[in-house]
Amino acid sequence: MPDTQAQAKEMNEANVSVCPAGEVFPLPTEAEYEKEFVRLQELVKAQREMGREIVVVMGVGFVGAVMAGVVADSTDKKNGEPNKFVIGMQRPSVRSYWKIPYLNRGVAPVEAEDPEVAPLIERCVKEKKTLIATYTYDALTLADVVVVDVQCDYDKESFGDCRNGKADIAALEASLAIIGEKVSPDCMVLIETTVPPGTTEHVAYPIMKKAFEKRGLKDAEPQLAHSFERVMPGRDYVASIRDFWRVCSGVNDTARAKVEAFLSDVLNVDKFPLTVLDRPIESETCKIVENSFRATILAFLDEWSVFAERNGVDLIKVINAIKVRPTHNNLIFPGPGIGGYCLPKDGGLGVWAYHTLMGFEDDIFKITPMAIDINDTRSLRVARLVRDGLRNVGKIVAASRIVVLGASYREDVGDTRYSGSEIVVRKLAEMGGDMVIHDPYVTHWWELEKQDTYPAPGHSRARFFRNQEEVKDLRMHKDLQEALKGADAVVLAVRHQAYMELTPDQVVEMVGGPTVVVDCFGMLDDDKIARYFELGCEVKGLGRGHVKRIKTRVLEK
Amino acid sequence: MPDTQAQAKEMNEANVSVCPAGEVFPLPTEAEYEKEFVRLQELVKAQREMGREIVVVMGVGFVGAVMAGVVADSTDKKNGEPNKFVIGMQRPSVRSYWKIPYLNRGVAPVEAEDPEVAPLIERCVKEKKTLIATYTYDALTLADVVVVDVQCDYDKESFGDCRNGKADIAALEASLAIIGEKVSPDCMVLIETTVPPGTTEHVAYPIMKKAFEKRGLKDAEPQLAHSFERVMPGRDYVASIRDFWRVCSGVNDTARAKVEAFLSDVLNVDKFPLTVLDRPIESETCKIVENSFRATILAFLDEWSVFAERNGVDLIKVINAIKVRPTHNNLIFPGPGIGGYCLPKDGGLGVWAYHTLMGFEDDIFKITPMAIDINDTRSLRVARLVRDGLRNVGKIVAASRIVVLGASYREDVGDTRYSGSEIVVRKLAEMGGDMVIHDPYVTHWWELEKQDTYPAPGHSRARFFRNQEEVKDLRMHKDLQEALKGADAVVLAVRHQAYMELTPDQVVEMVGGPTVVVDCFGMLDDDKIARYFELGCEVKGLGRGHVKRIKTRVLEK
Repeated sequence: MPDTQAQAKEMNEANVSVCPAGEVFPLPTEAEYEKEFVRLQELVKAQREMGREIVVVMGVGFVGAVMAGVVADSTDKKNGEPNKFVIGMQRPSVRSYWKIPYLNRGVAPVEAEDPEVAPLIERCVKEKKTLIATYTYDALTLADVVVVDVQCDYDKESFGDCRNGKADIAALEASLAIIGEKVSPDCMVLIETTVPPGTTEHVAYPIMKKAFEKRGLKDAEPQLAHSFERVMPGRDYVASIRDFWRVCSGVNDTARAKVEAFLSDVLNVDKFPLTVLDRPIESETCKIVENSFRATILAFLDEWSVFAERNGVDLIKVINAIKVRPTHNNLIFPGPGIGGYCLPKDGGLGVWAYHTLMGFEDDIFKITPMAIDINDTRSLRVARLVRDGLRNVGKIVAASRIVVLGASYREDVGDTRYSGSEIVVRKLAEMGGDMVIHDPYVTHWWELEKQDTYPAPGHSRARFFRNQEEVKDLRMHKDLQEALKGADAVVLAVRHQAYMELTPDQVVEMVGGPTVVVDCFGMLDDDKIARYFELGCEVKGLGRGHVKRIKTRVLEK
Repeated sequence: MPDTQAQAKEMNEANVSVCPAGEVFPLPTEAEYEKEFVRLQELVKAQREMGREIVVVMGVGFVGAVMAGVVADSTDKKNGEPNKFVIGMQRPSVRSYWKIPYLNRGVAPVEAEDPEVAPLIERCVKEKKTLIATYTYDALTLADVVVVDVQCDYDKESFGDCRNGKADIAALEASLAIIGEKVSPDCMVLIETTVPPGTTEHVAYPIMKKAFEKRGLKDAEPQLAHSFERVMPGRDYVASIRDFWRVCSGVNDTARAKVEAFLSDVLNVDKFPLTVLDRPIESETCKIVENSFRATILAFLDEWSVFAERNGVDLIKVINAIKVRPTHNNLIFPGPGIGGYCLPKDGGLGVWAYHTLMGFEDDIFKITPMAIDINDTRSLRVARLVRDGLRNVGKIVAASRIVVLGASYREDVGDTRYSGSEIVVRKLAEMGGDMVIHDPYVTHWWELEKQDTYPAPGHSRARFFRNQEEVKDLRMHKDLQEALKGADAVVLAVRHQAYMELTPDQVVEMVGGPTVVVDCFGMLDDDKIARYFELGCEVKGLGRGHVKRIKTRVLEK
């Protein structure tokens, strides 16, 4: 879709927004705003007469759009009738405006592997008529509840140094200022974004309080609440929002009661009970601890992965032997680095909050930032294994055709945010490798193409200098045979089902002869490893120290 | 029992061993050895005629004694008849010899909270007659299987610096040398001790191989195997050996097959399947990774505990909110430091092996040793909380009566090895506190009394200098009322059931007035905290940042 992008760039001044499929949407003009607000007022009036609560969801991105659908789809637990009317609100930017007409047509503005997403949005917009989308902030004046799903990134200034970074709370601050200007004082404002602990009380509260004061609402207390989501990309995406345990809190007793009532209305709290915590900092901390814990579990195995590689240990079998214990069953092999939107950043938000919002100067955080640094740099070892594998067959990385199978951060999804594969590709490109990428779920690898703005620069760009313009031009292969043809090395990077099923014979046939195979994710069992050796291939693997033993056995035969 | 100890010391030259209950056992004389061996030969001859395998368990300490019982209690899965005859073997040292006559009487030589231990030993010795104990190494010549349960400690040279230490493998080396001298070459030698990864192949194998060569057994291959236990002190102690998943491995195909067959005979492998790994280094690594993982999970929360204390967060509630997720349900609040025999040392064995046995110089381990250091020093923060609590009521630690409730490392057991309370007591004693200790499960706190030899010096002794002679003289209180009387501060250190049930009113009444209460383990809920404030007490807690909020509420009333 490079043409469409170029087109969009040209049209930037022409005020249009282009959706991924290429359709062009002109941005709204000044005159349209007034008309749009009249439309909303009429709709809301009718909805209020039906006894429905008006919920504005700010930000209809990856999480917001589906949360809007879940709220719009919920029904009164007594009579089974819808009791919420949802307005998805999105700033009409060139990048995102198209999502509004999309939603209003009943089309989900997000790509999702979950088959429930599209019918959910369509049902709410077209049948139940409980969901619309708009671009005007005036929608906020009509809200009983505002759900804030505005992104909050963490920008690392250098690669592998999480402490050296900052939370990007500008968009959140701007949103809260507008909310403070617009909402009725008793409107409950629910922040769902993962934020630095303390943000609701130390950032959002003062912004809204001042906005209220400007409006002459001297005694009005902002009814702020916080409840993070635990969204998981993949086939159970909607369920991960609706049918999963939630934690919430409010800045005061009223806000706490309001958020508890609201979430009890829209989520499956009978099966997944709600935890109500006293203060927002407690639920904010909860999310950060939760994801830092996960990042730590993964980072912990990196050093044991090196130990295993160097001392004849198959870490995959060791992990499986440990996981039988119920107390240890969340031990997970970290693969070629830890990606996804949350784990690489959330701990950083905690460290940042402690210093910046709470004003402490000392360095209490040891494991949390270290775990992120370990996870961010783990992928570099894949490049080393490729180098060593090629060396064993008399080649070097430079000018070798290196095929990376898998670009996403997780098996069987197309989400490429902060994926380990990105670092593998960048590093091997820097060493002069002729890179080829295949992923059945990924059409565009935005992080490579749009490297000027996304992801946070510190994640990778700042670290790699050589040949990074070439990385920008890499295209995704959809045809596996075409991708593998003539490969000097094949990197098994993601546990996509299609890759798990590949046999050594198929790979060697598609390549056209023996190759170097690097297993980043315990994807090869001992039989497959032995077969690769029988076929004359070289095999390396993260955490797979026993591979040499298998090679010896095969060669001795 | 100070008299008995003094008595034993005096009798050292008299060659006697005194059991904890005070009974005196003369050590065997030279002449008795020969007679003992004749007894064993006759017993073994009869047992062999019954088709039974002869199993010698070396070391009848905490683990070995119960493992011996489990093997002796096992039966042929076909006919239900015992098919093993077990000889518990223990060096006749002054410290440990008494265990042999104890066992031969059918009395378990270990104190255990598990009601199954005593009848297990009694049944095997007296009824089934499948278990005896001896002091002569010649028993090894009769063995089909030798199970090695000899201790392997890790000595830290300084407090809170796990990298600076060494594995104490001397006893293991000595045992293996004797085994090599004595056993028949096809005897399977099963190391169950938690050892530095690589020990079976890099240490045990060469020792036994050389011993065999000395005996002229040039081509004999030592049949070495490794399988660590996953023992858990407490009420399910026997089950944690017999009814739990095991991992095993052997140095060659024969040894691997033998250990698999042996463990399948004696353990409940139908319900808890056995994992057979290729090489001993894999099962050795398994144990170290497993316990390092646990230590890491605990250490991870230390920094968040500080964060919580300083920012109004109740970490206990945060943990409970996270634990509802099945993928996060092993998150555990670390209490006042992490004790027990394993977690403070096992990671150290891994780091040591990498440098010492494998000969690598680089520093690949980041999280594993750091986790141990964090856990070892966490207890120091309890002393700070006591200090701050006393300061709030105008007192200092020096000359204050400080009552520590709980000496063991874990709730409802009497095991005090490396307990966090030890550091709490030593640190507060150093600051001049008048220390009082109570624990319903502990009669002798050996780590305080025998501080010259046990535990490893680096754990604590080297760190604390002032008033440590007084610590040595501290006696355990058994009467809670007597202990609490006049307390300036009460440290709730262990989640023993009796302490969990204590009400604030009871504590204040036993103390005789308001006091400072320090909750190390999330033992107080919000109602109890509020009640303590109502009664005029001061409350502090590890990870309990919300306590101040409760105080404000109570004072505002």
